[in-house]
Amino acid sequence: MAESMQGLKRTHRCGELTAALEGQQVTVMGWVQKNRNKGGLVFVDVRDRSGVIQVVFEEGKTEAGLLEKAAKLRAEYVVAVTGTVEKRSGAVNESLATGEIEIIPEGLRVLSESQTPPFPIEEHTKTREEVRLKYRYLDLRRPDLQRNLMLKSRVMTLTRQFFAEEGFLEVETPMLGKTTPEGARDYLVPSRIHPGCFYGLPQSPQLYKQLLMCAGMDRYIQIARCFRDEDLRADRQPEFTQIDMELSFVDVDDVIEVNERYLSRLFREVLGIEVQLPIRRMTWQEAMDRFGSDKPDLRFGMELTDVSDVVKDCGFGVFTGALDQGGTVRGLNVKGQGAMPRKKIDKLTAFVKDYGAKGLAYVAIQEDGSVKSSFAKFMTEEEMASLIRAMDGEPGDLLLFAADKQKVVWDSLGALRVELGKQLELFDKNAFCFVWITEFPLLEWSEEQNRYVAMHHPFTMPMEEDLPLIDTDPGKVRAKAYDIVLNGNEIGGGSVRIHQDDVQEKMFEVLGFTKEQAYSQFGFLLDAFKYGVPPHAGLAYGLDRLVMLMAGQESIRDVIAFPKVKDASCLMTEAPTPADQKQLEELGLLVKKEEKTADEKSL
Amino acid sequence: MAESMQGLKRTHRCGELTAALEGQQVTVMGWVQKNRNKGGLVFVDVRDRSGVIQVVFEEGKTEAGLLEKAAKLRAEYVVAVTGTVEKRSGAVNESLATGEIEIIPEGLRVLSESQTPPFPIEEHTKTREEVRLKYRYLDLRRPDLQRNLMLKSRVMTLTRQFFAEEGFLEVETPMLGKTTPEGARDYLVPSRIHPGCFYGLPQSPQLYKQLLMCAGMDRYIQIARCFRDEDLRADRQPEFTQIDMELSFVDVDDVIEVNERYLSRLFREVLGIEVQLPIRRMTWQEAMDRFGSDKPDLRFGMELTDVSDVVKDCGFGVFTGALDQGGTVRGLNVKGQGAMPRKKIDKLTAFVKDYGAKGLAYVAIQEDGSVKSSFAKFMTEEEMASLIRAMDGEPGDLLLFAADKQKVVWDSLGALRVELGKQLELFDKNAFCFVWITEFPLLEWSEEQNRYVAMHHPFTMPMEEDLPLIDTDPGKVRAKAYDIVLNGNEIGGGSVRIHQDDVQEKMFEVLGFTKEQAYSQFGFLLDAFKYGVPPHAGLAYGLDRLVMLMAGQESIRDVIAFPKVKDASCLMTEAPTPADQKQLEELGLLVKKEEKTADEKSL
Repeated sequence: MAESMQGLKRTHRCGELTAALEGQQVTVMGWVQKNRNKGGLVFVDVRDRSGVIQVVFEEGKTEAGLLEKAAKLRAEYVVAVTGTVEKRSGAVNESLATGEIEIIPEGLRVLSESQTPPFPIEEHTKTREEVRLKYRYLDLRRPDLQRNLMLKSRVMTLTRQFFAEEGFLEVETPMLGKTTPEGARDYLVPSRIHPGCFYGLPQSPQLYKQLLMCAGMDRYIQIARCFRDEDLRADRQPEFTQIDMELSFVDVDDVIEVNERYLSRLFREVLGIEVQLPIRRMTWQEAMDRFGSDKPDLRFGMELTDVSDVVKDCGFGVFTGALDQGGTVRGLNVKGQGAMPRKKIDKLTAFVKDYGAKGLAYVAIQEDGSVKSSFAKFMTEEEMASLIRAMDGEPGDLLLFAADKQKVVWDSLGALRVELGKQLELFDKNAFCFVWITEFPLLEWSEEQNRYVAMHHPFTMPMEEDLPLIDTDPGKVRAKAYDIVLNGNEIGGGSVRIHQDDVQEKMFEVLGFTKEQAYSQFGFLLDAFKYGVPPHAGLAYGLDRLVMLMAGQESIRDVIAFPKVKDASCLMTEAPTPADQKQLEELGLLVKKEEKTADEKSL
Repeated sequence: MAESMQGLKRTHRCGELTAALEGQQVTVMGWVQKNRNKGGLVFVDVRDRSGVIQVVFEEGKTEAGLLEKAAKLRAEYVVAVTGTVEKRSGAVNESLATGEIEIIPEGLRVLSESQTPPFPIEEHTKTREEVRLKYRYLDLRRPDLQRNLMLKSRVMTLTRQFFAEEGFLEVETPMLGKTTPEGARDYLVPSRIHPGCFYGLPQSPQLYKQLLMCAGMDRYIQIARCFRDEDLRADRQPEFTQIDMELSFVDVDDVIEVNERYLSRLFREVLGIEVQLPIRRMTWQEAMDRFGSDKPDLRFGMELTDVSDVVKDCGFGVFTGALDQGGTVRGLNVKGQGAMPRKKIDKLTAFVKDYGAKGLAYVAIQEDGSVKSSFAKFMTEEEMASLIRAMDGEPGDLLLFAADKQKVVWDSLGALRVELGKQLELFDKNAFCFVWITEFPLLEWSEEQNRYVAMHHPFTMPMEEDLPLIDTDPGKVRAKAYDIVLNGNEIGGGSVRIHQDDVQEKMFEVLGFTKEQAYSQFGFLLDAFKYGVPPHAGLAYGLDRLVMLMAGQESIRDVIAFPKVKDASCLMTEAPTPADQKQLEELGLLVKKEEKTADEKSL
């Protein structure tokens, strides 16, 4: 039976108690972490979000009724304990922040009892994630998840404070917006008042924030919920959160400058880590050439080397064939791995095939300078020697090569580099290595749609010096777009936006939009642009990913209070669920599945 | 043609310029507010969110090309002006914060041109709201709306800062949740991966925040978007924002205490207004009896008087009839309005009919002490005299009476009181008058459903001393619920929650839920309650309404960047819109309307 806490007031959280309070009467409230009964002594550990404190009930010292009550406590009972803080009579517990002290109790109330929980509430649990997610309210009692959510809260508070001090206004933009077929798939919300019509949940507040710039808001910030109805990969959630901002009367450098000061303050105040400013910048082209990735992990080297020129006349058809088709041959020098077993190399070959590569060619330089290679027989010794030289190959090194279209080579060697970095532990796990990637291509050729598509979005500004190329060689046009990358993860990205009618029109033309198509989707923005638009630019961070990295976690689910699983369902609430028939009728909707059943019956 | 701002950097916002900067070179960027051409002088007012600055181009002094360019500027062009701050040569403009100074320009760039806007960008516009909402990006340039959004941003920042300092954690709860048929109508979101299944957008994070307390988060805050698919009345939006909080190990007084400190700091720091603490408290019963409202406007008196006892034996059948049916007779003394014309009284009678009253009985006490009354003929002089005495009636007063069921009398006289308060200007418009309303009834009888329904929600804790009544007289049970009322508006409300299994079960029983029904809707919460629940309580403010009152606005649309209109559509984006056929197919949905058309065709 639950006792009331009437008349009681908590004086401290458990973890706030220190030896400085010795002799003082306190009242703590929390969950029973454990309860040990040892020769007339009952030790009860009480836990709350701040930590754990030991309460010692002692035969002869503690009132008999209290002692009996304490002995009956079980894990996860909620209790209120009033007592006096004393230095521990027994050994100090070094593993506990409050390990020097204990409470000698004068009062105990059981505020709520508990059944035996389905898994113990402890750090570094081995319990399957499915079970933890079903009982998320218990999982969230574990100190590691509590720390994660406390860190996230701190990040959000500090973020808002920083940007408020910098003159950014927090403005809420609508969740029930207009759905557009462009880009990722929207979540739709049927309208009851307008049957057959739908709102779209925002994939980002992009259009609204640009409109706020048109509206003269000057600087905007929002920690905004965003939605994407895509098949979930690891580390994707159907709803996720962006730190979203936009600034008027600025260019690339202004956005970068304020965000560097933000990141520096965030990491200093939350993690006590100094971010070296200015953060290094790298063009997209350089990042791809050197690391095969637009989000390079700079905690380690092992860069890609372009050996196309070296092998262009060699005897190995895989290399020359790729080059003949306009492709490229690049290699990685895996230092000191010349003795890697063939089986392991085969695994790496399987790995790159996921990225479209047909295979990996390798050269293992033995300690005696001789060479084991999958393709030595197709090359002269001289060709091999110059290839090794080009790769800075030394005895004991393993050289890995991919030959294919440029994109395939970048993707597969870029991923392989990161994979090897992890496997070989080439980097400091506690390092935080930032880099800005700039000058992204404006457009990407879509084989599927047989047209150019915007690499960021259709409102991204081309670089002024590349404007003349937009008619002659659109694929070469670079954009005023930038990503901020941390340890190989894109944590944010943005761009300067187009604010000129004529450039925007040209952009839609290149993207193959008719005027009507552009208007039906973005009409209100194009209209707004007729009435005086300030030059503006913005950036958005993925909050969950940022916090995940700051917390040293592997999954964004560990920094989200109530995440969804891969099929976008919630294991705790079981959402989504079938709707009430009445609700569907009000919306003027029919669920097709049921109709099919009816058809089948009529057959 | 738009010029680039490359090479230019804004040094100040327009409103930041002061006489202290005299002689200094500055660059401002903003919109042309107006442009006057006067005998070789061109005066250009440049506006941004901070204010307006005058730029003076002068023949002979300004370079000719610049002067010509300036003369061609039109309203809402976006410009960058570089020049020197000087004391005004002409008269100081007292109505402008920067009225002492002007810029003598050395450079001018037109960053963006503008068509003539559909309405002028000015304060206190007379433009129809429909037009303003269609061009919201222009409407939001008006200084009054800019001030509102800046105020709202300030409120949000300060709110988060205050609660973070008080140990509250900001935790994000899901938007894609489980839909429940109880309460207001949910917005549904069809699932593509689970065809025929739906998420519900949250009406509030109520269940999640209680789960966070179960999870040991201790104190939670979120500025949370909420959704209700109801027919919109004035001042309702389909999506709205709550300042939502929950606290563990607390009772009513703790919640009130921290929120009083919050309100006091908020009003001091944002408006410079001192809130008198502690804020007055009034039970629900007292508020209804004295003001006919659970959100009384205490900026003025004119309280209701119960005259049921006085008139119970009188000859006026309307009074005694109402009393015979268990009703009540109450009156308002409208001081000094004894000479109110009959026509005006008739209008007030029509007014109360909207609240269910059958009419208003009146007594107008003339200056000479004689009486004009709609019912004097049914009463003896003595009865009338004692009625007037009971009402503290004096010569020149107007007494208005309603006789009906208690609820009807409260509603109609409560509304009439507020209406007369406005018409007769009985209160100081700049006053902020807070009151806590406490001890709400736990249950309300629903005629429609022929059962008790929860007045707040099914998790509200009954007052301990009323627990025995829950079986014998459930309508009499008071709840540990509280509202915070400002100037006759409920700006927030909350309650202590049930944290005991047995009380919760009893509650569902009284509400007529079977165990299965309770489980199918709230199973995960009831499950959570088996594993140790801390006593907890919470509160939520309606952010939009709070900011509306702080900004002295009449409509919440004036404090929301992109509001919707009465039919829940957005006049700017035209959302909601018909969905793409492909999107519907992916969701396994059919729009019924189209089906009907097909049927009709087949007839």
